[in-house]
Amino acid sequence: MIDCGEGTQVQLRRNKVHFGKIDHVFISHLHGDHVFGLPGLISSFGLLGRTKDLHIYGIADLEAVLLPVINYFSRELPFKVVFHHIDPYEPSIIFEDSVVEVSVFPVEHRIPTVGFLFREQPKDRKINKEICDFYGVPLRVLPKLKKGEDFIRDEGEIIANEKLTFPAPPPLSYAFCTDTRPNGSIIEAVKGVDLLYHEATFMGAQEELACKTFHSTARQAAQVALDAGVKQLLVGHFSSRYRDLSPLLAEAREVFPNTRIAKEGTVFDA
Amino acid sequence: MIDCGEGTQVQLRRNKVHFGKIDHVFISHLHGDHVFGLPGLISSFGLLGRTKDLHIYGIADLEAVLLPVINYFSRELPFKVVFHHIDPYEPSIIFEDSVVEVSVFPVEHRIPTVGFLFREQPKDRKINKEICDFYGVPLRVLPKLKKGEDFIRDEGEIIANEKLTFPAPPPLSYAFCTDTRPNGSIIEAVKGVDLLYHEATFMGAQEELACKTFHSTARQAAQVALDAGVKQLLVGHFSSRYRDLSPLLAEAREVFPNTRIAKEGTVFDA
Repeated sequence: MIDCGEGTQVQLRRNKVHFGKIDHVFISHLHGDHVFGLPGLISSFGLLGRTKDLHIYGIADLEAVLLPVINYFSRELPFKVVFHHIDPYEPSIIFEDSVVEVSVFPVEHRIPTVGFLFREQPKDRKINKEICDFYGVPLRVLPKLKKGEDFIRDEGEIIANEKLTFPAPPPLSYAFCTDTRPNGSIIEAVKGVDLLYHEATFMGAQEELACKTFHSTARQAAQVALDAGVKQLLVGHFSSRYRDLSPLLAEAREVFPNTRIAKEGTVFDA
Repeated sequence: MIDCGEGTQVQLRRNKVHFGKIDHVFISHLHGDHVFGLPGLISSFGLLGRTKDLHIYGIADLEAVLLPVINYFSRELPFKVVFHHIDPYEPSIIFEDSVVEVSVFPVEHRIPTVGFLFREQPKDRKINKEICDFYGVPLRVLPKLKKGEDFIRDEGEIIANEKLTFPAPPPLSYAFCTDTRPNGSIIEAVKGVDLLYHEATFMGAQEELACKTFHSTARQAAQVALDAGVKQLLVGHFSSRYRDLSPLLAEAREVFPNTRIAKEGTVFDA
């Protein structure tokens, strides 16, 4: 999960996201609307009897401010909260497992803030069942084929992996840039991702205000997407002054047509 | 406002309660579901440019735990947050102005917890306009009549106040008892109030669990209302296990018929 504003646990319940699926929480920066849901979420995890560790990633101050609150309100948690400190000024990999790699890169807000980049790990090649049956490939060999190895038959004949498998689906990538001015280093960081979330707090007409408050306009977000050559753009974090979001979307689409609105509760498939 | 769980500011907005109307927040005890909305509320007050002091009443620990969070996340608040420490073991008056007096009394929960009693101050008598006109009462005298003084005419004749005014409407009283076992001292504290809010976390069938977790059943809440001779009872703080609240209400009404459910967003008139 990325960021955790007040009421996150309510939204999770409303959208039927199982609490047990959340093992890692990535906090982009320490403004209340990105953090104030953590004490309640952790407390609810405890009441629900969670035992798995919960990993929280943020700048060092997060642990310093949050830990006393957790210690006071959730004295006997049945699980461990593990804090991981992010250096907000240096791009780095902060998490990796067999499925995904998560890295951070600095963005440009009023306080130290990072963006997150999620890259799927390279995937296994897919077995071509028909051809495998034809060559009599035994089941125990399939994991090796998935990793790209050739198949050597008992009589020594080598069957090339490319014959027996389909290419692995390309690993997907997702970048999350919240609360930031548009910035050249961001363009570099998110180059070519499949999906870019970029904040678009204001419309182009409020560009000056956006700059002053270290936010972006819809047009600027779209320009980042265009310059970075991403496949799809999601815009969000809109100022509450905009009741109707369609002009924001239209503004972004003028620059980057494949833009969508990150509306609460919507699920986007790659 | 009494207590401030996570998402309180969302509920206030949803129910169109003007943020500027809230000057005093009374915190019954330091469990997260009664406190975690405070940092966000205070932060939003700041963003909205509030300048009036905000008074927060709770045990001393509240300031100790909350202040570092406020200081970190709301560094330059345009208003002052004033903490008032409650002694949770001694009944006492914690606030008084010309309209209302607020006092606390201990209740019986797992941690130090108080109930709140709100008593309207005695009100002014109402002017009987017709009779006042008949006796030629000048406007400048009306405030004195409202306070109960007689009217002395220029020629020395005394017109009794009772002739010129109607009795003041009786001051109303409201008691709030959350998160508590039923308790004799509570019955004393809320004696005869117009409206009693009492928690009813469980049904009678779960009385043992209620006792163990320092909560009350609907039947027990109703018994408190009956024994204290209150006029009306509101029950709330229901365990999430009850999807349908009507059996809870029926159980309470068996003991105390004038019971209602404190459903979110409902307004109760005296």
